[in-house]
Amino acid sequence: MNQLIKLGIVGYGNLGKGVENAIAQNPDMELTGVFSRRPANQIKSAAKVYSMKELPEFQEKIDVMMLCGGSAKDLPIQSIEVAQYFNTVDSFDNHAKIPEYFKAVDKIAKQHKKISLISTGWDPGLFSMLRLLGETVLPEGKTYSFWGKGLSQGHSDALRRVAGVKMAAQYTLPNEEALANVRKGEQPEFKASAMHNRLCFVVLEKDANAEKVAKTIKNMPDYFAPYETEVRFITEQEFIADHQKMPHGGKVLRSGTSKDNDHQRLEFSLELESNPAFTSSVLVAFARAVFKLSQVNKTGAVTPFDVPLGYLSPKSEEELRRELL
Amino acid sequence: MNQLIKLGIVGYGNLGKGVENAIAQNPDMELTGVFSRRPANQIKSAAKVYSMKELPEFQEKIDVMMLCGGSAKDLPIQSIEVAQYFNTVDSFDNHAKIPEYFKAVDKIAKQHKKISLISTGWDPGLFSMLRLLGETVLPEGKTYSFWGKGLSQGHSDALRRVAGVKMAAQYTLPNEEALANVRKGEQPEFKASAMHNRLCFVVLEKDANAEKVAKTIKNMPDYFAPYETEVRFITEQEFIADHQKMPHGGKVLRSGTSKDNDHQRLEFSLELESNPAFTSSVLVAFARAVFKLSQVNKTGAVTPFDVPLGYLSPKSEEELRRELL
Repeated sequence: MNQLIKLGIVGYGNLGKGVENAIAQNPDMELTGVFSRRPANQIKSAAKVYSMKELPEFQEKIDVMMLCGGSAKDLPIQSIEVAQYFNTVDSFDNHAKIPEYFKAVDKIAKQHKKISLISTGWDPGLFSMLRLLGETVLPEGKTYSFWGKGLSQGHSDALRRVAGVKMAAQYTLPNEEALANVRKGEQPEFKASAMHNRLCFVVLEKDANAEKVAKTIKNMPDYFAPYETEVRFITEQEFIADHQKMPHGGKVLRSGTSKDNDHQRLEFSLELESNPAFTSSVLVAFARAVFKLSQVNKTGAVTPFDVPLGYLSPKSEEELRRELL
Repeated sequence: MNQLIKLGIVGYGNLGKGVENAIAQNPDMELTGVFSRRPANQIKSAAKVYSMKELPEFQEKIDVMMLCGGSAKDLPIQSIEVAQYFNTVDSFDNHAKIPEYFKAVDKIAKQHKKISLISTGWDPGLFSMLRLLGETVLPEGKTYSFWGKGLSQGHSDALRRVAGVKMAAQYTLPNEEALANVRKGEQPEFKASAMHNRLCFVVLEKDANAEKVAKTIKNMPDYFAPYETEVRFITEQEFIADHQKMPHGGKVLRSGTSKDNDHQRLEFSLELESNPAFTSSVLVAFARAVFKLSQVNKTGAVTPFDVPLGYLSPKSEEELRRELL
């Protein structure tokens, strides 16, 4: 057996915990330590916990560092700090800022001869890969991304800001009619709001006016007004029983035509009972790829588009050809 | 604009014609010529047609040669002959013989400093890539491949060998119950015959006994006996109207669990009105990847597992990150 791939985790929220669990499912890897700004006694991990200040001491002890902070505030700082010392993997998901983020990480990683894989998970990540695959194998066509059914954190937060709302969860759902039209091969054009519906589960504060709350929600600009939105009022008990999980998923479709107007359709879908657990699991597979790329002296920032798929697997090239091709 | 990628085609059946059509959908490529053992006047191509003997003269004029022969008899000979002079792409699909084929092609390509991408298309090809992706991002789980609804050439041939059958088409269909069980996340074990059904459209010879023909078909070992098989008798007119196309498709599913037994499912499906047109289109995208790999001096045999996805696209790395990540 080869040496195990040694991983570290920076940041221990839902994603960091998920990465710890995912490493346990991959026998060719081990978790060396968790690094956090919080005091070690606040981190409930089975791994050893270190402070961020200790990072530089682990340069020779960790092959790939998993950056598990948020994209808005944590990653732009963490990635620059950590890429000085380690190969890294992250899930930077602010699509509009990816080019700028890539540039900054690429510079620091190249300076220090490290490799940093950015923006993986399932979107960006697997969905991006399937969008690319779809448009290259069917160059004449259209690509569609649908999300859901899934819990949206941002929209749930928006609901909780409405006066009279005690607890709330918002699920994004693909609009079934839009999806059916895509599957028919008609290559329709949509506004974003026509592709998704919004389903809200709300627990009211005592004495709140349900009708008024529903109206306020449905009229919130950007968040709900442009969409087909349904508001369902439930009890606190129902909320606790049914809405504590973080399911998600979605679909990428490529609808294309080849000569003689033959319709050809490619569809990729995910149905996830736990969004953070799956995202973490994808990050860990890409950590293996980063380790292999570092072995062939690749440096700088890379994305899921730069990785030969075989690098994601613990199997040898021979095994892959024999078992999976 | 960069120089166009210059492609050639060896073998001009359904696949060769499809490759010619697919090249026309990719503005960064051009078709330099078609090479065939048949006399040029028997080849209905818009491209120039050459004899196989002229191949060596095109060494400097063609970047990637598309091998469009069959896996049983053509490719094992063609690939060895052509890889002496050209980078190649093929759709070798005899799964059991892939390791042996890889070895032979790898040797000759390395000797002549060429690169040969073998076994692409949709299975092997895209399905292989998704099987790999599925098991790496969900290491605890099971992978399932379903084929259909699609016309099976081999099974249609088998039907035509039955006495009393004038014309016949056989469609392979996923067994809907098996598919539903996989989607439930139960990770069932199946015999191959429980995953697919067989639907046969048969035109009888005059005076043939329908009951006897149906019985003979349903009892054919290997081909039909182990499967749920339906035989429908139709008229010659109906056959000509409805069964001249070559639709196909299928699904790869990965059903996995993460910690706390959360079910996670990944599903990839293809629905194709023209199987050869789609396979050709995939081959052409991989020709671009082979061209790019040759530019970085990669030699020997490779498979779809060895190609960074970005290499399939005519877009620059910057464009891919900005538009698709």
